[in-house]
Amino acid sequence: MVCGGSRRATVTVWTDLNEILDLYERGEKFYLYTGRGPSSEALHLGHLIPFMFTKYLQDAFKVPLVIQLTDDEKFLWKNLTVEETKRLARENAKDIIACGFDIERTFIFSDFNYVGGAFYQNMVKVAKRVTLNQATGIFGFSPEDHIGKISFPPVQAVPSFPSSFPHLFSGNDQLRCLIPCAIDQDPYFRMTRDVAPKLGYQKPSLIESRFFPALQGENTKMSASDPNSAIYVTDSAKEIKTKVSKYAFSGGQDSIELHRKLGANLDVDVPIKYLNFFLEDDDELEHVKKEYKEGRMLTGEVKQRLIAVLSELVARHQRARAQVTEEMVDAFMAVRPLPNMFG
Amino acid sequence: MVCGGSRRATVTVWTDLNEILDLYERGEKFYLYTGRGPSSEALHLGHLIPFMFTKYLQDAFKVPLVIQLTDDEKFLWKNLTVEETKRLARENAKDIIACGFDIERTFIFSDFNYVGGAFYQNMVKVAKRVTLNQATGIFGFSPEDHIGKISFPPVQAVPSFPSSFPHLFSGNDQLRCLIPCAIDQDPYFRMTRDVAPKLGYQKPSLIESRFFPALQGENTKMSASDPNSAIYVTDSAKEIKTKVSKYAFSGGQDSIELHRKLGANLDVDVPIKYLNFFLEDDDELEHVKKEYKEGRMLTGEVKQRLIAVLSELVARHQRARAQVTEEMVDAFMAVRPLPNMFG
Repeated sequence: MVCGGSRRATVTVWTDLNEILDLYERGEKFYLYTGRGPSSEALHLGHLIPFMFTKYLQDAFKVPLVIQLTDDEKFLWKNLTVEETKRLARENAKDIIACGFDIERTFIFSDFNYVGGAFYQNMVKVAKRVTLNQATGIFGFSPEDHIGKISFPPVQAVPSFPSSFPHLFSGNDQLRCLIPCAIDQDPYFRMTRDVAPKLGYQKPSLIESRFFPALQGENTKMSASDPNSAIYVTDSAKEIKTKVSKYAFSGGQDSIELHRKLGANLDVDVPIKYLNFFLEDDDELEHVKKEYKEGRMLTGEVKQRLIAVLSELVARHQRARAQVTEEMVDAFMAVRPLPNMFG
Repeated sequence: MVCGGSRRATVTVWTDLNEILDLYERGEKFYLYTGRGPSSEALHLGHLIPFMFTKYLQDAFKVPLVIQLTDDEKFLWKNLTVEETKRLARENAKDIIACGFDIERTFIFSDFNYVGGAFYQNMVKVAKRVTLNQATGIFGFSPEDHIGKISFPPVQAVPSFPSSFPHLFSGNDQLRCLIPCAIDQDPYFRMTRDVAPKLGYQKPSLIESRFFPALQGENTKMSASDPNSAIYVTDSAKEIKTKVSKYAFSGGQDSIELHRKLGANLDVDVPIKYLNFFLEDDDELEHVKKEYKEGRMLTGEVKQRLIAVLSELVARHQRARAQVTEEMVDAFMAVRPLPNMFG
């Protein structure tokens, strides 16, 4: 489905990955954990990348996956009602399901619906092992912050522990966990890895995807208040064309003559960065980069290629999402055993 | 049952009590909320008083009652495992049930078992409305405290809101709540009353029972590490006799001659304070106080009367507790509607 090109070049940092893969080769199982904070209706491509990569891992290893929707976090941080964050969680679940996850191996949950029981016990166990000093050092809390912010990190920590999911991993408390996530989530899992051994749990392993830039370039931010800063999965082909043509920061030279002579600066070129994430064909990618760098390809041509790749990816995602019914959301989010999750 | 004398003189502070009683007289309902932190196996008489008083209120007003067992709090504060606090919660529930609560109007829950759903949503809503500064001002947290302590106050706050119990009060979000509790719980409910209007909820009303002294007197503390500082509901008649005779601080004079002349100082006399809580008969209490104060009754005689009262109360409690089965605990703790709770 939409998740092809993401296998390459999305990963910048890994922690204990070799260990978990060595164990896997020796027959030991693991599970995947990723998540999303449902603060907006439409995802942009930066949101999609960890899910595309996670889907790639699930297909490669045939392992179970838990996906946390932190509606509680978004209620705490944003000016949203509980009801609105729960609604956004379900809407975002549809985009996640559209990535093609295997319902026989995937449990999606919202915190507002799932927190309780063994999951809550683990939250309290983690909270007992982190001082306010430590939390402030990791997350930068201030005395004016509300205590909801300070209470939240254990909620994101505990899906790393299989005992938080008795309906999935009962009697399997030492099962290893691998977390593919965006790199900005690192503080949560640094805290989690510190606490895990104190609770007699395995530390989760991490694969953190590199920073995905805004259209305007590395030092700008994708922002919901500026729709031209990102490509959304709801964008039309026309919108994609306009955004890439008009706003994608180019590393090409100012004139054709100069470009033919000096070539493009790939280090700052956003279309190349995006193709790095989304162009399926390794050989073609290398070819484009070489031709562009040496001035034989122009910015306009590279952008045309990117527009084609993104239009196809987004259209495919939109078709897949249109197939996702409310019943499918209910099915993915049902608290249920996954009988063949390692099969 | 064991809850007779407690109606008198147990209350020192009330907040909005008149308002809730005025509304009651005009036909508006309310519910009761009280609780216990299950940190030890055996309750002492100081623990029992709020429950005896709550039972008196339930009988008088025929209203529903929720009883929170904060096993999560005790796990966070004490050196206990989750499993041990959950076990203690069930054991303590037996003592609470032995006070004679009406199963048709009473829901007992442990946090580790019940937190989730609407209750968790209210926890997060409260946490969003209390800054770390405010929480530190109310509870005196320090940077070395773990974040579990800082996360806990909303857990104790939210049973004040009927929407935390959809199986009981669905569609009745403005139902008033009256909290009989020991006075040391005041900080939690001060915070709760501050937050309630910000969430569109009613402020709970409070009846706080006065300080119940240790046997050694007002300025000493009942302590689990000193069994002679308190009468436990598990004490034998012989233990009660020894504790009262040997350890209960007396306001009587040093010699009989002096006592006959000066009389007792009731302000510091522990047997009189205990009789204030537990002697059923108002006239007899007044008589004892007068005779003792004026030197006609001796300390030994007052202590004999107290020993008789406490031995009877404790024996009655022990008989009632012996009748409490595991099935009864399950029944009180079942998440269920209470069909005739206002009947």
